Amino acid sequence: MAPACHYQTIGIISRPRRAILAEILPKLLVWLEERGVATLLDPETATAVNRMEAGKTRHQIAQEAALLLVLGGDGTLLAAAREAAPHGIPIFPVNLGGLGFLTSFTLEELYPALEDVLAGCAPVSERVLLLAERTHNGSTLTRQRVLNEAVVHKGTLARMIDLELYIDGGFVCRYRADGLIVATPTGSTAYSMSAGGPIVHPAVESILVTPICPHTLNDRPIVVPDVSEIELRIEENSDSVFLTLDGQTGVPLQAGDRVKITRAVERLKLIHPPTKSYYAILRSKLKWGEA
Amino acid sequence: MAPACHYQTIGIISRPRRAILAEILPKLLVWLEERGVATLLDPETATAVNRMEAGKTRHQIAQEAALLLVLGGDGTLLAAAREAAPHGIPIFPVNLGGLGFLTSFTLEELYPALEDVLAGCAPVSERVLLLAERTHNGSTLTRQRVLNEAVVHKGTLARMIDLELYIDGGFVCRYRADGLIVATPTGSTAYSMSAGGPIVHPAVESILVTPICPHTLNDRPIVVPDVSEIELRIEENSDSVFLTLDGQTGVPLQAGDRVKITRAVERLKLIHPPTKSYYAILRSKLKWGEA
Amino acid sequence: MAPACHYQTIGIISRPRRAILAEILPKLLVWLEERGVATLLDPETATAVNRMEAGKTRHQIAQEAALLLVLGGDGTLLAAAREAAPHGIPIFPVNLGGLGFLTSFTLEELYPALEDVLAGCAPVSERVLLLAERTHNGSTLTRQRVLNEAVVHKGTLARMIDLELYIDGGFVCRYRADGLIVATPTGSTAYSMSAGGPIVHPAVESILVTPICPHTLNDRPIVVPDVSEIELRIEENSDSVFLTLDGQTGVPLQAGDRVKITRAVERLKLIHPPTKSYYAILRSKLKWGEA
Amino acid sequence: MAPACHYQTIGIISRPRRAILAEILPKLLVWLEERGVATLLDPETATAVNRMEAGKTRHQIAQEAALLLVLGGDGTLLAAAREAAPHGIPIFPVNLGGLGFLTSFTLEELYPALEDVLAGCAPVSERVLLLAERTHNGSTLTRQRVLNEAVVHKGTLARMIDLELYIDGGFVCRYRADGLIVATPTGSTAYSMSAGGPIVHPAVESILVTPICPHTLNDRPIVVPDVSEIELRIEENSDSVFLTLDGQTGVPLQAGDRVKITRAVERLKLIHPPTKSYYAILRSKLKWGEA
Repeated sequence: MAPACHYQTIGIISRPRRAILAEILPKLLVWLEERGVATLLDPETATAVNRMEAGKTRHQIAQEAALLLVLGGDGTLLAAAREAAPHGIPIFPVNLGGLGFLTSFTLEELYPALEDVLAGCAPVSERVLLLAERTHNGSTLTRQRVLNEAVVHKGTLARMIDLELYIDGGFVCRYRADGLIVATPTGSTAYSMSAGGPIVHPAVESILVTPICPHTLNDRPIVVPDVSEIELRIEENSDSVFLTLDGQTGVPLQAGDRVKITRAVERLKLIHPPTKSYYAILRSKLKWGEA
Repeated sequence: MAPACHYQTIGIISRPRRAILAEILPKLLVWLEERGVATLLDPETATAVNRMEAGKTRHQIAQEAALLLVLGGDGTLLAAAREAAPHGIPIFPVNLGGLGFLTSFTLEELYPALEDVLAGCAPVSERVLLLAERTHNGSTLTRQRVLNEAVVHKGTLARMIDLELYIDGGFVCRYRADGLIVATPTGSTAYSMSAGGPIVHPAVESILVTPICPHTLNDRPIVVPDVSEIELRIEENSDSVFLTLDGQTGVPLQAGDRVKITRAVERLKLIHPPTKSYYAILRSKLKWGEA
Repeated sequence: MAPACHYQTIGIISRPRRAILAEILPKLLVWLEERGVATLLDPETATAVNRMEAGKTRHQIAQEAALLLVLGGDGTLLAAAREAAPHGIPIFPVNLGGLGFLTSFTLEELYPALEDVLAGCAPVSERVLLLAERTHNGSTLTRQRVLNEAVVHKGTLARMIDLELYIDGGFVCRYRADGLIVATPTGSTAYSMSAGGPIVHPAVESILVTPICPHTLNDRPIVVPDVSEIELRIEENSDSVFLTLDGQTGVPLQAGDRVKITRAVERLKLIHPPTKSYYAILRSKLKWGEA
Repeated sequence: MAPACHYQTIGIISRPRRAILAEILPKLLVWLEERGVATLLDPETATAVNRMEAGKTRHQIAQEAALLLVLGGDGTLLAAAREAAPHGIPIFPVNLGGLGFLTSFTLEELYPALEDVLAGCAPVSERVLLLAERTHNGSTLTRQRVLNEAVVHKGTLARMIDLELYIDGGFVCRYRADGLIVATPTGSTAYSMSAGGPIVHPAVESILVTPICPHTLNDRPIVVPDVSEIELRIEENSDSVFLTLDGQTGVPLQAGDRVKITRAVERLKLIHPPTKSYYAILRSKLKWGEA
C-alpha cells in the first residue's frame, strides 16, 4: 500500500483571466485525485474549469486545506499569503509567466516538485509578515498582515505628505515626501527597491523604512530590528493621504491617524526549489549576469 | 522733475491666508502711489487690504500690468509665471517665508530692491518654460505652459503605469514606474530632485526626463536638448494615470493619450538680486555649507 | 569607606596633536587618582602631559586596563576598538570635536559621565566586529578585526577592479567597480553611506555589501545575515587592487587572492549616554531636523 | 574614371594584443590600396601585420592623415580623440568586441560603412572636448584635452580629499569625497554614470560635475553650461590627490594646486552609423529593453 500523501487536502488559488489555466488545470486535478489528494478551488480556479459552483472563498479554503497551491505571479501570492499565514499552512507557488522573486517554481517544474511536496521532502522556508494597524484616538480602524510592505502615500492630486516616524515610542524624524514604505526583507525586492531601498536577505531580522521622493535631507533608507514598533503619525497639514497594503488595498487616512507596524506573530511558510538559491534568483531577476 | 518710473503699472499677486499681508500691503500701496505707480490687485491681495471690490483676475492683471510683484513662495510664483510669460512682463518675486529657489528676494530687501526695479536697473534673467499638450487621436485636449515640470503619474490606488517615451518621433524606451517627470532646468531643484534627478543650471538649454520609482532598469535621469520634442504615450494596460502641471492641476489620462512636451516660445522674465548667485542660493537651500 | 570603583585601572588613548589634550589631561589624571583609579597612558597621551617615558603601547594597555577612555573622534575609536575587543574591556568614548556616530560623549559630559561609569551604572551596548582574512592558495596572509568595514578597492592609477562575490560558498555575482565595501551595521553610517548604502541599526544582525562606483547592473547594496561567510575573489584581469580595513591600513592584493569576511567572535563593548538614542544621534549628524 | 576618394590618406589606430587584428588587417589594407587610399599604421597596427618598421606614432599619423580608422573599444578611441581633435580630422570607429557608446560600428559593418565614408556620405557628428589645466602659483604644469572626463581623486591609501569648486571665479561649494568628476556629455555614460550621474545627450551644451562617494550633503550631480570655467582647488589638509584624464593618466597633485577645466576650442569629429540613434545605443548598452 502506498503511503498517504503528506498533504491530503490542497487548496488551489489562481490568477484570473489566464488562458493557460484552462489548459493545465484539468490534468492537474486528475493527477492529484489519482494520488488521493482532495482539492479545494477558489472562484477563479473553479471558473477556469467550468465548475463555478464548486468555488470556495480563499478564506474558507485556508481554513480547510493543508497546503495552498498558488498558480500566478508574485501578486497572486501576496493575497494568498494573508490567508495562509494565520493557519500556518504552507504555500507552494508556481509562476505562470517567467520567474518571480517569490513564485520560484516554473510550470515545467510543477509535477516533479509536486511529487517532492506530497512526499514531504520539499524544503520550506519561513518569511516574516508585518502587522499594520491604523488607529485614530486609540480606536483600531484597520488591521492587516502584509508580506511585502505597508505604504503611506499621497493621493493623486496631493502635493506631498508630512508625517512623523516614531520607533519604539521615540521620535525619529519628520518626512516631507510622496510617501513612506515600511517593508519586510521579502518586500525589499518589490516597491522599496523601486524607491531606492537596499536588497535585504529574508533571514535578516529587520524592517526597512524607505522614503518615496523625499523633499528633505533624510532621504536614505533605514533598516531597523524587526522587533521594533514603527509608528507613522500623519500631520495636520497633509493633503490627502492613503495607506496601501501589499499594493492591493488603499485606505484614506485622516489627519491625526496613526499607522503602527510590527512584526506579525505568524510567519508565511513558503515551499521553494532546493536547487535555486536566493542569490541565484536575484541574479536572474536583476540581470546581474549581464553588461 | 523726477523721471518716470520704469514700470508705471504693477500687478500684485499674493498667496492667500498670509496674516503678514495685512501688515505689509497698506504701506506698500502708499509707497507705490507716492511714486506715481498704479497698482492692480489680485483677489487675494485685495482681500488682505479689505478692498475685495478692487480685485481683478490674475489673467486681467497680466494683460494690463507692466510688471508682476509676487508676494509668496515658489508655489505662488509658478501660478503667476503662467500668466506673465505670454505677455512678456517680468516678475519681481518676494518670499514671505525664508528663501525660495525662485523667490530670492526677502521681505527685508523689498523696498531697496523695488527702487532698483523702478529705476530700471535690476537684473532680469530669462527662464525657459515648457508647453505641455495632451492629445487623443490627434485632438488637443489640454495645453498649458509650465515653469517647473509636467508629470505623468499613477493615480492613488493604481499599482504603476506603463508608458513609452519618444523623442523627436523616435522610440526611446518604455517605463514601468510610478510616473515620469519632464522638467525644465528651473524645475531641476523641485520635484525632479526629490525623484533623484540632477541639478541643472538654468542656462543649460535642456529638458530633464526623470522617472519616479522605476521598476525597470532605465532608472537613470536623462538630460536632452531643449529643442527636443518629448512625447509620452500611455499604454493600454496602465491603471489610472494623471497629468500634473507645475504641481497644481491633475488631469486624468486615458489609454491611448499622448502628452507632447516642447519648449514654449515665450520665456519667463525674472528679476533677481544682483548679489545672490545661482550657486549661492543652491548652497543655502541645500545646506551645502554644513556637515 | 567609599565603595571601590567599578573600574580600577583605566587606559587612556588619545588622538595626537590635539592642543586641547594638554589642557584637559592634567586635571583628568588628578581627578582619577583622587578616586583611586590607576591610569595607563598611550604614547600620544603621555606626550601631551610631558610624561613620554610613562607611555605604553595600546596593545599593552588593552591587556592591563579594565576600561579604555578614548579621547578623540570616530577614527581614534576605530583603532582602540581593535585592541579592546579581544580582551572584552569596554570603551568610554569622548569626542574632542563635535559629536561622532560612535564617540557620543562631549567634553562637557566627561566628568558626570565618568562618575556614572565608575559607579558601574553607565549603559554598555555591544557592537559586532568583522574578521577579515586574506588568503592565497590556502595560506592566511592578513587577519584583522574591523568595527566599520573592510574595503577591496582599486589602486590610484587602476581603472577598475573585477571581483567575484561568494556567500556561504555559493557564487553571488561579479562586480566591475572601483571597489566593494563589506560593512557592519556600525559602519553603515561611515564609508558605506558615502557609497550609497542604507543606514542599518546596530542591533540588526547583518553585514552590508555596498559597491563603489559599479560599472555593472548590480549596483544596489545588499544586506545579508551576519552569520554569512562573505568571500571576495580577485580576478586575474584586475589592475592593482588593495584591501583597506577600517580606513587605516592598505594592503596590496594579488590576482588569485581571496578575502574572507565573517563575524568576529568578540564584540566591542561601548559605553553610551543614557539620554542620547541612536536615532537622536542620526538626526543630529545627518541634519535631519532641517530643510 | 572613378572619382577620387573623399579621404586619400587614412591612419589606422588599433588596440594592442587583439588576435583578431592579424586576421582582418591584411584584407583591409589591400581593400584600401585597391581604392587608392594610402594608409598610415600606428605601432600596434604595424606589429599586427608584421611591419613594425612601418609604424608611426599616433601623433605623426594625426598630422598626415585625413581620417583616423580606430579598431578597438571606447578606450582606444579616447586616446585617438586627443590626437585627432587638434587637427580637425574625423574618426571612424569600429568596435572589435560588442558595441561601444562611442565605437558604434561593428566589424560586420566595416566594409559597407567604409564605402560610405570614402564616398563622403557618412554622417559626422561633433563632440565637445574639455581642456584640463593644472596650475600651481600661476604656472601651468599639465594641459590636456579629454573627451570623457577629468577626475580629481584620492590616492590608494588616502582617506578622502577636500576640495573646493569654483565656477566662473565664484565659490560654489566644498567637497569631502573620494573624488570629483568633471565630464562632457559624451562622458556622462562613462565614469560619471558609475558614480551616479545622469545621462546627458551629447548635443546639450553642458559640463557635468559628479562627486564620487561624497561624505557631505552636496551629493547631487550638477550640470552647468559648457561655457563655464570650472576650477577645483585642492585644500591643504588633503591626503594624496591625483588628477586622471580620460582614465588614462594619473598625475599627483599638491596642496595648493588648481585644476581648471574649460571647453576646448576644437571638437572631435566622429563618424556614426546613419541607422543607429543615440537613444538606440543607450537602450542596447544599458539593457533598457529588459526586465
